[in-house]
Amino acid sequence: MKFIKTPVKGMCDMLPADMRLRSQVLSMIRDSYSKYGFMEIETPAMEHIENLLSDQGGENEKLIFKVMKRGASFASALEKEQYDELADSGLRYDLTVPLARYYAANSEKLPTPFKALQIGNVWRADNPQKGRFRQFTQCDIDVLGDESNLAEIELIGATSDMLLKIFEGIDFSGLTVHINDRKILRAICLQAGFKDEDIKSVLISLDKYDKVGAEGVKKELLENGYREEQADNYLKLYDRQENGDCRQFCSEISEDFLKPSDIDSIDTIIKSVRAMADPRISIAFDPTLVRGMGYYTGTIFEISIDGYNFSIAGGGRYDEMIGKFSQNPVCACGFSIGFERIITILKDNLKETARLEEGSIAFLVNKNVSEQQKVAVFAEAKKLRAEGRTVSVLPMKKNLNAQFKKLEEEGFTEFKKIYPEQG
Amino acid sequence: MKFIKTPVKGMCDMLPADMRLRSQVLSMIRDSYSKYGFMEIETPAMEHIENLLSDQGGENEKLIFKVMKRGASFASALEKEQYDELADSGLRYDLTVPLARYYAANSEKLPTPFKALQIGNVWRADNPQKGRFRQFTQCDIDVLGDESNLAEIELIGATSDMLLKIFEGIDFSGLTVHINDRKILRAICLQAGFKDEDIKSVLISLDKYDKVGAEGVKKELLENGYREEQADNYLKLYDRQENGDCRQFCSEISEDFLKPSDIDSIDTIIKSVRAMADPRISIAFDPTLVRGMGYYTGTIFEISIDGYNFSIAGGGRYDEMIGKFSQNPVCACGFSIGFERIITILKDNLKETARLEEGSIAFLVNKNVSEQQKVAVFAEAKKLRAEGRTVSVLPMKKNLNAQFKKLEEEGFTEFKKIYPEQG
Repeated sequence: MKFIKTPVKGMCDMLPADMRLRSQVLSMIRDSYSKYGFMEIETPAMEHIENLLSDQGGENEKLIFKVMKRGASFASALEKEQYDELADSGLRYDLTVPLARYYAANSEKLPTPFKALQIGNVWRADNPQKGRFRQFTQCDIDVLGDESNLAEIELIGATSDMLLKIFEGIDFSGLTVHINDRKILRAICLQAGFKDEDIKSVLISLDKYDKVGAEGVKKELLENGYREEQADNYLKLYDRQENGDCRQFCSEISEDFLKPSDIDSIDTIIKSVRAMADPRISIAFDPTLVRGMGYYTGTIFEISIDGYNFSIAGGGRYDEMIGKFSQNPVCACGFSIGFERIITILKDNLKETARLEEGSIAFLVNKNVSEQQKVAVFAEAKKLRAEGRTVSVLPMKKNLNAQFKKLEEEGFTEFKKIYPEQG
Repeated sequence: MKFIKTPVKGMCDMLPADMRLRSQVLSMIRDSYSKYGFMEIETPAMEHIENLLSDQGGENEKLIFKVMKRGASFASALEKEQYDELADSGLRYDLTVPLARYYAANSEKLPTPFKALQIGNVWRADNPQKGRFRQFTQCDIDVLGDESNLAEIELIGATSDMLLKIFEGIDFSGLTVHINDRKILRAICLQAGFKDEDIKSVLISLDKYDKVGAEGVKKELLENGYREEQADNYLKLYDRQENGDCRQFCSEISEDFLKPSDIDSIDTIIKSVRAMADPRISIAFDPTLVRGMGYYTGTIFEISIDGYNFSIAGGGRYDEMIGKFSQNPVCACGFSIGFERIITILKDNLKETARLEEGSIAFLVNKNVSEQQKVAVFAEAKKLRAEGRTVSVLPMKKNLNAQFKKLEEEGFTEFKKIYPEQG
């Protein structure tokens, strides 16, 4: 019999210590969002291929694991040489497409607005590399059907709260929420003299601001055929970004391009988050924040841990996407949490691996003990468990030292050896 | 754009109330087994097709959702008309094959014996019907590498404890553990004069005992060509099963067919479980219990809720299967919990759906409130959350009554309406 011991390429087996850490973090995520009134939902791992290929998934649509049809419909597609029809479903590559389908199917049974938490595995046939897997856990929170900025405030408040709890166990100085608005990004482009159709390409260049600086962005704009004057006009508007005040930054933008109410809205978000947030959380207006996904329509945000140069959560408002699916307009705003990245940071920084609870006991039972003794051991184990202790009743192994060592690694701190009674 | 709102055939979207119930039950399962020293692991949803077709899965091997190869290897299989080679992996149909692979790959990093808890979705391309889905959650607990009956005692003790906690919320009189041993089943066949090669077919007939009675079993044995004398001899041995005493039942079996130590072992299991168990749990020796799967080698057991005529958990000892995979002998004993069946029973019997925690508050904010008011609302929400309350800040909808109703259904019990201040 041919048998393969390793997991499928790019996928992981989780050892007990991994699972303890992941479970702890998942519990904290669930508890935090639940306190903010988010409700957990679940969608199936498989989705209709039509939905997966509906053009919302960007590059991920190339990475779909397709699930084959079966029986007659498979045979028929094969016979007709319709090789694109061999699969009618696939594994989801994100939680957003399933959320859109879910809301279209179930919105009548749900409160409006609906605050959703979805945690689940997704699959992408990506090239595996360190920290990038073909099956990984995503965690999304979304507010559907709220056009007001209460959605943004709740999302940012809940997410920064949650992250603070998770990182309490490691040395860290704080979290920064970076916030911007697609409407502001657009207004600045127009103010600088770019045309509507240029905005997409200009933002792709601006997105590199934190890596290449104003000079680098200017260079790329010129390479892309924009005039020097346009580029200078544009980047001059970013000169004054340093003080981080949104109102001041936007003060030079004409009302033709940006409504005062849009500036008020982001300002209220920033002030409300400050009113709620722990002192270790700062929120900063960041006019160079772009975020890649094409579907954002308004506010966008990311959260980074101070000292790390990447974000661990990001999201924004996407008022048009859910509506495309349900054919009713539904405004939406959401966060996607970098669960695997959080786990990696914790594993790198926690002083020890996640262990069993303090005071866990292993009873090691010699194989020659009498029936009576066994019964007594289990009765004692019952008593200790009723007191809340973790008790594992195990056969004593020949190599007792090796057995101790492995059990200690998992977190057992007390051992009780049971030998046959002298009779 | 073509877009399908319903989930993939035979799969479910979970509504918030469903999820609350499922999460509560999963927490109880995790907590209970953890107290007994079981450690949670996770394996990927996808498995190598070779492993899935390794002949351990019985009928389930016909129900595999196969995942298509990609790129050049897909094109090559297609071109060579090797249609069986279009898929190199599939979705797991149970948690046992992945467990065997996991143990073969990771046993060096794990304690011996290893007490595993695995909870995860499995997929079967079965005909969907009420209560039978194509994606569903399985929950398996297994002790690997323990040849002693400590494994059985811990498994039965932990599982009955867990079930008791789960059913505490509904009216129920108790649980019954049914236990038997494949060695006893075999010995009785031999004692009655059947040959070794007849045992499999005789047990298939005996398996119907609880439905068709002794007469029905006899009829089938005769239809299968066995002599009346043999059938009578065999069923006479079952005459005295009613009193449920294992030692007495086995007293007429010759030592040529059944070792006294095997009888001692099941007797110890029964006595130890009684020493540990709550009075609402009874354990009964049931010599007609067969359990279908071919891989069992020793003790077999099932748990039923009194008043329901089906089991909600079942398992047994399977000392040869894991070894086949790892090519080292590894004894094993495990339970599979009927998670979806448990959920169905709870949904049918709980007086109300799973709701939010008591005291959950919804703040309903009118869209014309000032920035200052908003900031104050979020500051108040923060205070209440710090006290442990669930608070959801939501925009007030035009149809306030409908909004109240939906929120009450989910479990919100307090509402606070915020209107613009008179200024």
